[in-house]
Amino acid sequence: MRNPLTEAFGIEYPIFAFSHCRDVVAAVTNAGGMGVLGALAFSPEELEQELTWIDEHVGGRPYGVDVVMPVKTLDRDAGIDDVSDIGAQLRSHISQDHWDYTDRILTEHGVDVAARDDGLEEGAGLGAGVLGWTAATGAPQIDIALSHDIALLASALGPPPKAAIDQAHEQGVKVAALIGRVEQAQRDVALGVDIIIAQGYEAGGHTGEVASMVLVPDVVDAVDVPVLAAGGIGGGRQMAAAMALGAAGVWTGSIWLTVAENGSSPVVTEKLLGATSTDTVRSRAYTGKPARQLRTAWTDAWEAPDSPGTLPMPLQFILNSYASQKMGATPPRELVGMPVGQIVSRMDQVRSTKQVVVDMVQEYVDVTERLTADLEG
Amino acid sequence: MRNPLTEAFGIEYPIFAFSHCRDVVAAVTNAGGMGVLGALAFSPEELEQELTWIDEHVGGRPYGVDVVMPVKTLDRDAGIDDVSDIGAQLRSHISQDHWDYTDRILTEHGVDVAARDDGLEEGAGLGAGVLGWTAATGAPQIDIALSHDIALLASALGPPPKAAIDQAHEQGVKVAALIGRVEQAQRDVALGVDIIIAQGYEAGGHTGEVASMVLVPDVVDAVDVPVLAAGGIGGGRQMAAAMALGAAGVWTGSIWLTVAENGSSPVVTEKLLGATSTDTVRSRAYTGKPARQLRTAWTDAWEAPDSPGTLPMPLQFILNSYASQKMGATPPRELVGMPVGQIVSRMDQVRSTKQVVVDMVQEYVDVTERLTADLEG
Repeated sequence: MRNPLTEAFGIEYPIFAFSHCRDVVAAVTNAGGMGVLGALAFSPEELEQELTWIDEHVGGRPYGVDVVMPVKTLDRDAGIDDVSDIGAQLRSHISQDHWDYTDRILTEHGVDVAARDDGLEEGAGLGAGVLGWTAATGAPQIDIALSHDIALLASALGPPPKAAIDQAHEQGVKVAALIGRVEQAQRDVALGVDIIIAQGYEAGGHTGEVASMVLVPDVVDAVDVPVLAAGGIGGGRQMAAAMALGAAGVWTGSIWLTVAENGSSPVVTEKLLGATSTDTVRSRAYTGKPARQLRTAWTDAWEAPDSPGTLPMPLQFILNSYASQKMGATPPRELVGMPVGQIVSRMDQVRSTKQVVVDMVQEYVDVTERLTADLEG
Repeated sequence: MRNPLTEAFGIEYPIFAFSHCRDVVAAVTNAGGMGVLGALAFSPEELEQELTWIDEHVGGRPYGVDVVMPVKTLDRDAGIDDVSDIGAQLRSHISQDHWDYTDRILTEHGVDVAARDDGLEEGAGLGAGVLGWTAATGAPQIDIALSHDIALLASALGPPPKAAIDQAHEQGVKVAALIGRVEQAQRDVALGVDIIIAQGYEAGGHTGEVASMVLVPDVVDAVDVPVLAAGGIGGGRQMAAAMALGAAGVWTGSIWLTVAENGSSPVVTEKLLGATSTDTVRSRAYTGKPARQLRTAWTDAWEAPDSPGTLPMPLQFILNSYASQKMGATPPRELVGMPVGQIVSRMDQVRSTKQVVVDMVQEYVDVTERLTADLEG
């Protein structure tokens, strides 16, 4: 396959794969696509290690890094910018009602909330995940990413800072931004973003309300940069649909959660393999912003009539992180969730990363040939 | 274009057009597609007239009729089957709180609710629209439809009764059913339905939560009958995407609301032409079941914290119909709504029905050729 995007990156297929797993990132890149590592879960030191590992395993083939740059979070609103003290400052914004409701959910599902208390005072809910969502801590990830030989810097929930875009361009790194509305695409292109990732309602993780079928062509027509289609893409038919809608390539995420190289826990893998397209929900229960995920007793509880309501990012995630610590290594199955898109319906067997790429490309070719044949009657 | 569906119906393009306007139905059929008249808004006598008019204007070319057969409505639950008295029986299930809240919404938007009272006691909210949604009154529409030379009997919200499916088949009429979940498609095919209309979240009117990008291939793989893709389709790129996903054709609806032949009011047309994909909402405020429509002060009011909550079908529509009567011929602009899909973003000019078909087909051909060219590099 050849189009401006495959030419620009020197890749065989315009398949971009978002994953938090370095093995998946490297395997997609080595299979002719472009792996993109989600940096959110890593501390600066860890991210440095992961990227060094990828550098060593892709033989100079292109890969990317994805950071999360929320335009609006509580720490920005409250002017919190002292990282050393950020935990206590954030926790001071969580009401006792919310802690109590969290304990109640856990207790109702058999978790002994008094059993695990180690380090909760200081550390609870302050994993790198939360820190990555604060303005004060997102920037170092960009610096580390740009110190490696990356081909793409992508950002979600908002564009990278202008200075980061400029620095990326100086180094020959393309910048992509993930959006859910046409106006966001126009805003980001005006800032200098090179590629727009138009993500539809059906996508996993943070996502908007416009479905890919409508969003993709609307964005393609509204901006003059290449557009990647995201949301609902797990196979070659969906890839062909995305390209038909005008996308220059596809941005995939969920589909990599059940590949052999991905290190999900057995219970998560089992739930993902068993889920259908109606087993996900777009909920604020995980991070405080609407994100599609498996529907669980946790997401149901935060939608229930007696829920105190979810908290803004990153406070809601602190409650999640607290709950994770309380649940320990064997959480109640009904509380185990995972951000994933409606395409989870297609995730019904474990394949190798390379096989997913090969299957997608083969089906894409078959579909294109079928469309042509139908046309010729 | 040629595929099993175009062969079966003897049509040039697998473009199915749902419309309440007979002119649109005839024009699509005459342009090489298949017009399908939505019967819901018509009394049996009116439906007879509309179909006679269509018979006289399509020169034997195929067209269809769409009926609504809700699986679950209050009148079914309550065992109401006496049509002569159905109005009073249904109204007895509406609480004073709901009438008061409706009056409050109207008053807040400047409607003098005391000004129009004629006939409200007997007739309010009991137009054919409500009757079409009750089990007792849906059946005659099928009888009338089958007394004309139709090629397709389609149903939404549930399959036609088994007897109607059998009668249709005896007359050589194909039966289609609109679904939003894989299990519904399997249920309907087991009943003898010939064609499944897989309608995604982005669609206008009553719709489910799974987006077309995921729903269509899932349904295609789950049933062994042709599948029409519905939801988010307004142009040739989307038609090509639908066919890439495995659909045998497309089912379109919203896009016909702004064609020259359609008789929308000037304010509705203006609002549709000005709306973007984020100006719709999936709400129970119109009929009591989730339906995508323009977001208005009315839909907002029923989602507001002090709302008494929407009522089950068909009671909520009775409140809508009551409000329409109270508002008269010039309703407040902010209360004027319309069921429409996210594709409303593409409805930015008035075209003739024929031109919409021609544009869709031309773009479809262009896209297919582009995909083939990209593949060959």
